[in-house]
Amino acid sequence: MKLHWSPRSPFVRKVMVAAHELGLADRIRTVRTVVAMIKPARELLPENPLGKIPTLVLEDGTILYDSLVIIEYLDSLAGGGRLIPSSGMARFTELRRHALANGFLDMLILWRNERDKPQPLPALLDAFALKTDAVLAALEAEIGAIAQGPTGIAQITLAIAGDYMDFRFPDLGWRARCPRLDAWQREFADRASMRANAIVDA
Amino acid sequence: MKLHWSPRSPFVRKVMVAAHELGLADRIRTVRTVVAMIKPARELLPENPLGKIPTLVLEDGTILYDSLVIIEYLDSLAGGGRLIPSSGMARFTELRRHALANGFLDMLILWRNERDKPQPLPALLDAFALKTDAVLAALEAEIGAIAQGPTGIAQITLAIAGDYMDFRFPDLGWRARCPRLDAWQREFADRASMRANAIVDA
Repeated sequence: MKLHWSPRSPFVRKVMVAAHELGLADRIRTVRTVVAMIKPARELLPENPLGKIPTLVLEDGTILYDSLVIIEYLDSLAGGGRLIPSSGMARFTELRRHALANGFLDMLILWRNERDKPQPLPALLDAFALKTDAVLAALEAEIGAIAQGPTGIAQITLAIAGDYMDFRFPDLGWRARCPRLDAWQREFADRASMRANAIVDA
Repeated sequence: MKLHWSPRSPFVRKVMVAAHELGLADRIRTVRTVVAMIKPARELLPENPLGKIPTLVLEDGTILYDSLVIIEYLDSLAGGGRLIPSSGMARFTELRRHALANGFLDMLILWRNERDKPQPLPALLDAFALKTDAVLAALEAEIGAIAQGPTGIAQITLAIAGDYMDFRFPDLGWRARCPRLDAWQREFADRASMRANAIVDA
């Protein structure tokens, strides 16, 4: 399988960590594809017209995106139900927690894009800050339950969001503001799957 | 079930159309919640700290988002496998097509937000236009296969994206550029589920 990949994309990292957890990492061949909101990767558009990574190309040419779809596919290759519970409320709880962590990443990326513009819109920056405060408070309140849940797509995405904040928003001070989330994240970030796929600013 | 709802959100419309197709529309009580990127709905943040709609609150207080998670949940209430195939490559094809249509909606909303700013970034507007051209070309090429697929979450989301373009991007001329997509979309948009949940600029 070919994966459009970048060492800085948290969504790519989700797929790589998931593949490692599932024992499938050696089946993935990565191809470096650099995308940015203001600079689409033209060579990627025939395979993913949204211009987003990760994009996975199977041996038979079938193309899969986004990261959730790719991870559910990899999970099915590994027998199913390993990173996303197969059914019942356990599944929907996992997917809702994933949506929270993943939607947070989406928002952080938009915030960073706005912040780095020549003329950022103050009201938009304020809105991102307000929602980030709400997300951090919600995560700090829920981390006990999340930590007791499965080592699945929600935990993976949340741990990656923590590292992403360190990487792109060092002034946010999330670790001091969310001590329980911080403690859990440090432990999760020490997993082999996370260390083997660290964010690299290269 | 309580649904945070707005008559202008294409993501809310996905859920409403899906509920109608599944025969569950009368189980949903809608609450109007107005959100905008520069104006988060503070009253929504305790239930969804991302400040996004749709957000579904079940009778026991369980909260679900985003629209994909809600629709898969509603699908499970209706027996499962009706709007998203339960397993196999049919499932991943449906989810990838959904990711295309849904990612397109995400992009159109960001494009509109940028376009309406006092100082839009020209490079960003150009990037949205380039990716939109790529998406429309891909959809026009794939619509034959999509039309032969199930009446599921991909078709629903794609038909809603068509109406959203008419609503917010009338100058895009997508119907003239994509005649096959146009013909398919007109027919799908005539379904009772779509007509019962039309976009209203109110």
